[in-house]
Amino acid sequence: MFTETLKDLVLGTEGGVASLLMDSSGIALESFVREGSDLDITTVGIEFSVVLGSIKRASEMLDAGGARELSIGTEKYTTLIRVLGDSYFLALALEPDGNFGKGRYLMRTAVPKLLADL
Amino acid sequence: MFTETLKDLVLGTEGGVASLLMDSSGIALESFVREGSDLDITTVGIEFSVVLGSIKRASEMLDAGGARELSIGTEKYTTLIRVLGDSYFLALALEPDGNFGKGRYLMRTAVPKLLADL
Repeated sequence: MFTETLKDLVLGTEGGVASLLMDSSGIALESFVREGSDLDITTVGIEFSVVLGSIKRASEMLDAGGARELSIGTEKYTTLIRVLGDSYFLALALEPDGNFGKGRYLMRTAVPKLLADL
Repeated sequence: MFTETLKDLVLGTEGGVASLLMDSSGIALESFVREGSDLDITTVGIEFSVVLGSIKRASEMLDAGGARELSIGTEKYTTLIRVLGDSYFLALALEPDGNFGKGRYLMRTAVPKLLADL
């Protein structure tokens, strides 16, 4: 159901590697990995669901409002995360020199489509 | 010593609110807040230093290489963070509709200047 949207995200973003729809407890609903990549996007999602939890606590302490998006740049990948409602998030992993702005934009526009099906 | 750089970051980014140079244990070296804002950027930095720690652990688990940059978007602010060496980070808080790309760019170019003085 979500495959086309996840695939469009990766293939539509220069340097896109993999995408994932996950619930906040770390259970993957669906994922897409670009051919030729061996990135284990599900494990990335599980690790970053823990990070999202620590951001949620920080935002509450700061009274900064709910977390909406997150990006994490490491040496090997940049991972963009967008929170969907209370229980899900969407992740997109890029090469470090991938098109960050395009990825952010495509994720933002994919949200209503995904939310309608969740 | 760092004030001019921190000030240039905030005033040079449309929607820039505050900037901060902090060590990874949460001790502020210096900060700048745009006139008229009451954002407590030091407290934001302390909270997000905890988040950085959880990202560091996640990156190690994933063998993804060290964390280099991070952005956290909440309802009230977007905070960009850039890691400086092993022990410091630079943070820039923007309004949610601030110029994200410009902020990222200015932070990236400020790093060598800050590192030279640390």
